[in-house]
Amino acid sequence: MNFAMIFRILGWMLLFEALFMSPSVLVGAVYREGDVIWLLFSMLVCAVAGILFVVISRPKVRRIYAREGVVICALVWFLYSIFGALPFRLSGCIPDMFDAVFETASGFTTSGASILSDVEALPHCMLFWRSFTHWVGGMGILVFVMAIVPLAAGGSAMFLMKAESPGPSVKKMVPKASQTASILYKMYLVITVIELGLLLIGRMPWFDACCLTFGTAGTGGFGVLNSSVGSYTIYQQVVITIFMILFGTNFSAYYLIMLKKPKDIFKISEVRTYYGIIFAAIALITVNILPMYANLGLAVKDAAFQVGSIITTTGYSTTDFDLWPSFSKWILVLLMFCGACAGSTGGGIKVSRIQVAIKTIAKELDNAIHPNNVRKIKYDGKTLEHSVLRGINVFLVSYFLVMGASILLISIDNFDLETNFTAVVATLNNIGPGLAGVGPVRNYSGYSAFSTCVLIFDMIAGRLEILPVLVLFSAHTWRDGDMFTYQKRASKSRMETESRILDDFDI
Amino acid sequence: MNFAMIFRILGWMLLFEALFMSPSVLVGAVYREGDVIWLLFSMLVCAVAGILFVVISRPKVRRIYAREGVVICALVWFLYSIFGALPFRLSGCIPDMFDAVFETASGFTTSGASILSDVEALPHCMLFWRSFTHWVGGMGILVFVMAIVPLAAGGSAMFLMKAESPGPSVKKMVPKASQTASILYKMYLVITVIELGLLLIGRMPWFDACCLTFGTAGTGGFGVLNSSVGSYTIYQQVVITIFMILFGTNFSAYYLIMLKKPKDIFKISEVRTYYGIIFAAIALITVNILPMYANLGLAVKDAAFQVGSIITTTGYSTTDFDLWPSFSKWILVLLMFCGACAGSTGGGIKVSRIQVAIKTIAKELDNAIHPNNVRKIKYDGKTLEHSVLRGINVFLVSYFLVMGASILLISIDNFDLETNFTAVVATLNNIGPGLAGVGPVRNYSGYSAFSTCVLIFDMIAGRLEILPVLVLFSAHTWRDGDMFTYQKRASKSRMETESRILDDFDI
Repeated sequence: MNFAMIFRILGWMLLFEALFMSPSVLVGAVYREGDVIWLLFSMLVCAVAGILFVVISRPKVRRIYAREGVVICALVWFLYSIFGALPFRLSGCIPDMFDAVFETASGFTTSGASILSDVEALPHCMLFWRSFTHWVGGMGILVFVMAIVPLAAGGSAMFLMKAESPGPSVKKMVPKASQTASILYKMYLVITVIELGLLLIGRMPWFDACCLTFGTAGTGGFGVLNSSVGSYTIYQQVVITIFMILFGTNFSAYYLIMLKKPKDIFKISEVRTYYGIIFAAIALITVNILPMYANLGLAVKDAAFQVGSIITTTGYSTTDFDLWPSFSKWILVLLMFCGACAGSTGGGIKVSRIQVAIKTIAKELDNAIHPNNVRKIKYDGKTLEHSVLRGINVFLVSYFLVMGASILLISIDNFDLETNFTAVVATLNNIGPGLAGVGPVRNYSGYSAFSTCVLIFDMIAGRLEILPVLVLFSAHTWRDGDMFTYQKRASKSRMETESRILDDFDI
Repeated sequence: MNFAMIFRILGWMLLFEALFMSPSVLVGAVYREGDVIWLLFSMLVCAVAGILFVVISRPKVRRIYAREGVVICALVWFLYSIFGALPFRLSGCIPDMFDAVFETASGFTTSGASILSDVEALPHCMLFWRSFTHWVGGMGILVFVMAIVPLAAGGSAMFLMKAESPGPSVKKMVPKASQTASILYKMYLVITVIELGLLLIGRMPWFDACCLTFGTAGTGGFGVLNSSVGSYTIYQQVVITIFMILFGTNFSAYYLIMLKKPKDIFKISEVRTYYGIIFAAIALITVNILPMYANLGLAVKDAAFQVGSIITTTGYSTTDFDLWPSFSKWILVLLMFCGACAGSTGGGIKVSRIQVAIKTIAKELDNAIHPNNVRKIKYDGKTLEHSVLRGINVFLVSYFLVMGASILLISIDNFDLETNFTAVVATLNNIGPGLAGVGPVRNYSGYSAFSTCVLIFDMIAGRLEILPVLVLFSAHTWRDGDMFTYQKRASKSRMETESRILDDFDI
């Protein structure tokens, strides 16, 4: 294990976290808020710690491999959550350190789960920092940094990106990882700016528009009002609905627009299915909740908002859907599991994984009745490799195991089953609100420090799609004997090793 | 598709169902109950229908293949549930036909879920028939028949058994399927008789002892008192606890005893893990519920009973565990999913499937940090074949999909989420009682006819481990063009085809 390089990269990342805090300082200055001092102090702590990390580490070898890539990625997310919590804790806005880390992890992982019962009590600079973490975390912290500066990792950046990117496999749009990251962020920035513009045209105040746009773009869900999005105008709610769904779309679709091939978008079967699910869910829920509404339009608007919010794992709400009938509530729970497209900012299992999983059932049924037939599973016209299928299956198994274990651990607090179940589902899928005790008008402050840690783990595990975080906790990863393997591998030609890493890293 | 042979075998099976009803008629005669007339009438209906089926079908070819095997197996379970419901419906003991079929399907699939609020109101002959379905269904209806009479299927009986037997793969103990079935039933009978003897020694009335033994042996859960097992003596409760756990053990263990190799039992890793899980769960729950009990002994007794009842998917209860703390309740929910050993009479996912699934995660973690290593997954010293792993993954995926869809369908009745969730979990895993509205002191009578059908489907799908039932609903199965494949395959040498069927049929 190349510990020196791990420290070095983590150090650089902390320096970037200090940088990320600067826009919030600006907001604090504009609103002349005293708490801005704590943001400045936190920036200083991040910067000093970052410099220390970089200076202390003196890497002899600059190359890192799959193992280091996974470890760095997982550690960065924990580190960002802890250091990012400093402003909340130091200012006293969130008096408990565990709660503060929960709130920050919820921000970076774009969960949007909150322990705050009164969001409006926070100063503007803190609210801005809280929402800005969504925007940074949405496309990925490491991907963000890679888009700006080529990491000092000697070009072996692709698997850092792989560990962080959602979905069964990362397709490089262009050969170089840093270029791919840069294209992704350009598209991300453009759509963000369009949403901000549309909200401002709809006369939303600047501050609200910025924060809500960050929350939508990262599919996060932190708002600035206690009523989430319920008290904004219908126009503003519709804009947010549309953009939540757009940010949950596979970004390959936008790349096709950049390449001037917009017609090819619906050739991507994940995008077709994603929009199909959305329309079906809106239709079913509208019919189910219609008796509760004055007219069809309002029912469709609320159904569409909640469906878009949950399937993209954003977590905004315009109504207390905990009061909806069981049928609509269970559709939302199913959408929580489903999640958005791979290659988007959304969480959950991802539409493409579910599509492939269903294809494996069809294949097996065929096999049961025609044992002699050999059938390959195709997706978007390409035969899926065994390693991709295996990766999806392992993801699903570890996903359900982590879920079951997490519910067991937090049930020590003795809340009811529905609260515990949806709390874990909503954090593991990076959604935010669940049902019952953690429903849209409630929050996570009731859980003990221990349960809070479990849920922090779930949010980060969910964001990184489980495996990278499990690697952190595997004794195997840290075993000394592995140094030999490392050195042996280091002597191989760079190209050969890297290509193999890339092949094998489909999570 | 060899429809003629399908009809013929179904006809024979109906004749056997008539035979299965005869012991209950005897019980009715002993207690001089008037309702026995309806049992006799139902026997007649089964016999006439069976003879009609056999006479009408005039199979030209006697051989059947994987496809027919799966279809027959799935149909037999639906047919048995419908015809077996006649006594309840005709006598008016269960006035609604859907409820009667639910109760019977619950019996044959050894779920033990009931729509009856007052069990004690039923006459003895009906209670006996209700419990006897557990004993028949426990080891498998087709397996039962195969053990007694070589089916008129020209020796191609193995895949009938495969479709019906629980667990990732059926190991033939001896080369011939009918011999394996016969050995299984001998062991089943011996352990049943021992339990009956021990309960009688403990002064349990004959009738109660028979019914509870059937319920334990099939890991079913129907009792004869409204208090389930709560009002029996501690000795009787302990005997039932032990035998529930024994019937959830892989029957390979008992075969080793028959072969006089009892020391080898704990070399079976599934058996080791199964007992490990049981002891851990009892310990955790005991600590958790201790404050609710007068002394440690009673807490251990109730914890052990409920753990044994739930992990083996029997469903008896000695206490209303819906009142236990969330932590203990969630342990029980996890045990509902876990289930008993493969090759036992219990339901659920099965310990061995979960073990293998966890091994695939370990392998993938290893792969993430050492992309160059190639590792095979071993189980009980043998390398697992790809088809077994694929079968397990497909099972898990279809299992969770059926679960999610079922909850959605029954949520139309607008019960709360905990009730719907545990109702589906408890039927799909063949357990019986769930929590909240379907908890141990409640029942399933509140659900509409539509939801009752969904839950009947879930019980049978769970008992047959999903795929055989999905095959029934796949248009592909019934497609005409397949006749060609069928004939082409029929011309191949018998040995070659059969061995291939066997290889490919690991569900």
